[in-house]
Amino acid sequence: MNALLQKIVEDTPGARAAILMGFDGIAIDQYVRPEDADTDIEALAMEFSFRFLELRKASESLDLGEVSDITIKAERGAILVRVLNPEFFVATLLADAGHFGKGRWLLRSTAASIASQL
Amino acid sequence: MNALLQKIVEDTPGARAAILMGFDGIAIDQYVRPEDADTDIEALAMEFSFRFLELRKASESLDLGEVSDITIKAERGAILVRVLNPEFFVATLLADAGHFGKGRWLLRSTAASIASQL
Repeated sequence: MNALLQKIVEDTPGARAAILMGFDGIAIDQYVRPEDADTDIEALAMEFSFRFLELRKASESLDLGEVSDITIKAERGAILVRVLNPEFFVATLLADAGHFGKGRWLLRSTAASIASQL
Repeated sequence: MNALLQKIVEDTPGARAAILMGFDGIAIDQYVRPEDADTDIEALAMEFSFRFLELRKASESLDLGEVSDITIKAERGAILVRVLNPEFFVATLLADAGHFGKGRWLLRSTAASIASQL
C-alpha cells in the first residue's frame, strides 16, 4: 500500500505527497516526499474530505452519477483526487499544476491495485 | 458574453452547456447546445456554487492560495470550472470526460475575455 503511494509521488513530477483516506477523514496510509517532510498531507486531505463528500452528493442528486475524479488547482499547489469506492479516495498533492496529466494517469492506473488492498 | 459561452460549448467536443455564475449561485449568462435544450445548467451550477466556495475557503485556509480551476468527473458527465475572480466562475458541462484537456484550455483562454466584460 505504502509502496503504491510512494510510486505515485515519485513518478509524478512535482508531487509532494499522496494519501489514502476515508471520506470520514480518517487516513489509512500516506507517503510524503522526504524533501517535503513538513507537508501535512493528512490535515489537508481531512479538511477536504467532507467537501469531496458534498461534491459526490451533489453529483448524484443532479443525475451525473458517482464522481470518479476531482481536481483542484490553486495558486500554490494542486490536488488530484481519485475516488476508489464509496468509502475511500486517494489524493496527490502537487507543488504546482504543471503535470496534471501524468499525475492523473498514475492515480488512475494504481487505483485498482490500491482498492484491491482495502 | 453569450457569444463567448457559445464558443466554449461549440469548440469543446462533448460540451453540452456553459454558464457564467456568481459564487452566490446567481447566473449571469449561459449557453446550452440546442440538442441539449433539456440541460438545466443553471440548476446544476447553482447546486455546485456553494460547494465551490467551500473548496476555495479550504484551499486558502490550507495555504494553497486562491483556487483557479476545479474539475469534477462523474459517471454521466464532467464539470470544468474556471474561477474568474473572487465573485464569478465559468463552468462547462461535458457529456463525457473524454475531452477534458481541450475544454480546460478553452475555458482558460476565454476567461480573460469574459472577465473583462464583468
